Amino acid sequence: MTKQTIHVVGGGLVGPLTAIFLARHGFDVELYERRHDMRKVDISAGKSINLVVTPRGLVALDKVGLQEKIMELAIPLDGRMLHDVKGEETYVPYGHKEGEVINAVSRGLLNQRLLEAADEYENLNIHFQRHCTDYDVNTRTLTFRNEETDTEEKVETEIVIGTDGAFSAIRKTMLENVTNFDYAQSFQKHGYKELVIPASADGSHLIKNGVFHIWPRGNYMLIGIPNLDGSFTCTLFLPYAGEKSFETLKTKDDVDNFFNETFPDATPLMPTLTNDFFDNPTGALATVKCSPWNIGGQAMVLGDAAHAIVPFYGQGMNCGFEDCTALGDLLESGEKDWNVIFTKLGALRKPNTDAIADMAIENFTEMRDTTADPKFQLKKQVGFELENRFPEQFIPRYSMVMFHPEIPFAEARRLSEIQETMLDDLCANINAPDEVDWDKAEKLVKKISG
Amino acid sequence: MTKQTIHVVGGGLVGPLTAIFLARHGFDVELYERRHDMRKVDISAGKSINLVVTPRGLVALDKVGLQEKIMELAIPLDGRMLHDVKGEETYVPYGHKEGEVINAVSRGLLNQRLLEAADEYENLNIHFQRHCTDYDVNTRTLTFRNEETDTEEKVETEIVIGTDGAFSAIRKTMLENVTNFDYAQSFQKHGYKELVIPASADGSHLIKNGVFHIWPRGNYMLIGIPNLDGSFTCTLFLPYAGEKSFETLKTKDDVDNFFNETFPDATPLMPTLTNDFFDNPTGALATVKCSPWNIGGQAMVLGDAAHAIVPFYGQGMNCGFEDCTALGDLLESGEKDWNVIFTKLGALRKPNTDAIADMAIENFTEMRDTTADPKFQLKKQVGFELENRFPEQFIPRYSMVMFHPEIPFAEARRLSEIQETMLDDLCANINAPDEVDWDKAEKLVKKISG
Repeated sequence: MTKQTIHVVGGGLVGPLTAIFLARHGFDVELYERRHDMRKVDISAGKSINLVVTPRGLVALDKVGLQEKIMELAIPLDGRMLHDVKGEETYVPYGHKEGEVINAVSRGLLNQRLLEAADEYENLNIHFQRHCTDYDVNTRTLTFRNEETDTEEKVETEIVIGTDGAFSAIRKTMLENVTNFDYAQSFQKHGYKELVIPASADGSHLIKNGVFHIWPRGNYMLIGIPNLDGSFTCTLFLPYAGEKSFETLKTKDDVDNFFNETFPDATPLMPTLTNDFFDNPTGALATVKCSPWNIGGQAMVLGDAAHAIVPFYGQGMNCGFEDCTALGDLLESGEKDWNVIFTKLGALRKPNTDAIADMAIENFTEMRDTTADPKFQLKKQVGFELENRFPEQFIPRYSMVMFHPEIPFAEARRLSEIQETMLDDLCANINAPDEVDWDKAEKLVKKISG
Repeated sequence: MTKQTIHVVGGGLVGPLTAIFLARHGFDVELYERRHDMRKVDISAGKSINLVVTPRGLVALDKVGLQEKIMELAIPLDGRMLHDVKGEETYVPYGHKEGEVINAVSRGLLNQRLLEAADEYENLNIHFQRHCTDYDVNTRTLTFRNEETDTEEKVETEIVIGTDGAFSAIRKTMLENVTNFDYAQSFQKHGYKELVIPASADGSHLIKNGVFHIWPRGNYMLIGIPNLDGSFTCTLFLPYAGEKSFETLKTKDDVDNFFNETFPDATPLMPTLTNDFFDNPTGALATVKCSPWNIGGQAMVLGDAAHAIVPFYGQGMNCGFEDCTALGDLLESGEKDWNVIFTKLGALRKPNTDAIADMAIENFTEMRDTTADPKFQLKKQVGFELENRFPEQFIPRYSMVMFHPEIPFAEARRLSEIQETMLDDLCANINAPDEVDWDKAEKLVKKISG
């Protein structure tokens, strides 16, 4: 067999990791990225500037020996700090077991580390400032805009993997060329705006480090994630239209008044608030689903290009990294036929990426609306206690999604829907976890675990 | 106010009717159609060659004085004739009231009549062989391929209505240009193939005229609709892949054997079966949903371009004609601002087109799978009897969709989901309509009607 070259389009997070998996299996890999080499040039924050790495992502990183290197960048977060409208704080842990934390990292640093790691493979070349504008399905030719020389380049390919994000050019060619291609893009009625709580003069964090801050306000919310430099990246999620919305926040006074009334403890810590509000773009929250993910054995989309999701479970990248793990496992199995590899990979992953897409939207409601609800907190506590008592039979949804990569997303969704009915039942007429009827609970748990 | 010109792209069924509504309200209308003038040239059957006109469509036709002219083309169908695998027939009426019929018409003849009617308006021009390839959202310029002269034509516009079908060029520009555009296209796992039962030598129908024939076979089915010339247009709906599928019917023998075994009474009446099977294309069954339907006051999609649905309730065209009725009502109200007209029209229609899209998919299962089920037939009969006894409170789903244009599709769907639970309850332990517990039925009906 002659050595095959795989062209990977998109050098964000999933692209380099895909390229690394392929290089380790002996393929020649050509990786193309639209932006400058982000190890040399500061990239602008087009997307959210931090994100969380969770065990699903760590499984993939571990397979290629990168877990330690990436974890150097991380701030572990062990729970949510809820801020009410008076500025009072309530802490709700994420899990209740040792090591049940999520890891905040800078998107830019993580991307740099992944590219550095990719660059170490001799059989892997990275090309920057190559903006993919077309993939000809018949001739298998990629067209790039070379943004360095401002010229057009054509590249003949055998096998293409598109990891070029939510607005993927490769997926666009599928939409136009694949017969009976199922495709859906949908947007939340909320947009988002990135803001900042800077570090104190001595570089320390002005609010508690090591937790995920949420200011839940029903139909909207503010969140804050700590950075290594002492600052917090804050994100306001707000409807586009309506009474409290991007539409109604027109002047600096509007913004000042809204923030002072709604987030009184955070606002004094945000000196550049109004400038940031009007200078930063308003981001959209898209979900993209499609099927199939591949054109026979010649092309496939992975990561956001195949399944963009909203960020409310912090699983966008982790879910994309799971695609890489699954691809690695298929290569490991000895399968050589790319049509089989791509078809199996899509069949394995799609039910799970659909499930996390839906759960992420559901978690938006939970975060903004119900985290402040006493019943929600009671159900959380009872869920943890059920996990304590029946660790084999009951793992709460949040824990399954975040801390149990061995449970596929689709299974996590199925189980947690049954659990939710059970928790509603057990918590219907009580106000504290010690009032739970544990005999009944045991019967219910045994029933659901078959 | 200067007289406005509206450009209507697409001269299929909804396009001419939209153009007629606009012309009657005094607008200058330019109507563009990709094909030849179908009054002069025989058009090839790209799409299904017959369809049904139901009261929702008749409401729209009546508004512009065309009901009588179109009904001249129609064959009224008053029920389904079910054919089992032994060739035995069972008749199930559609409704049980006078005039509860659907009307089979030829797509080609209907299209011709609509174009003739449109041509009678002095302020309405029709342009044939103009294939719309682009709509520039910024300059509001339409680009057409003039297929007569093989040249490209640019047309400057103020207001565009795209009625250019399921693969709409106008909708494509929306997908590419409208911020946060929600879009979904999805395909059934079944394709379809058009076949024919010709007329007898004396021009009469070889199987019963005036009914809709179905050969339900679980996962697939054959249907037959009578034509005025004595023939029946038959359509086979079959999975693309699997045991009994387009994939496995590879040779003429495969087709002959499959048809003889599965449709023993129909097959001897289809002398051109195997040729038709391999000569005719395999059609796809698509559902398209999008939102918004308009770009401010400058452009809008209507009909299949906005909401393509599967054909299993015969409502694709009728639903598109309802768009025209709603547009007419808005113009009638005196509203002049096209942004308001388009936005209101979308808001009014979208919940209903979403509802019929879902109900049409559900009816596919009913037609192929459950029409032959005795429980289904029992529930149908009990539903009719409930309508007899409680005509104000209980109208079966099929009747609401087909015969009650005053009930919007979304409301029909909501009500019928409640009714279904009730019918399941009433028919759970009985085998004939006269065993129904009518006291209980009355209580349930009163409960749901509130």
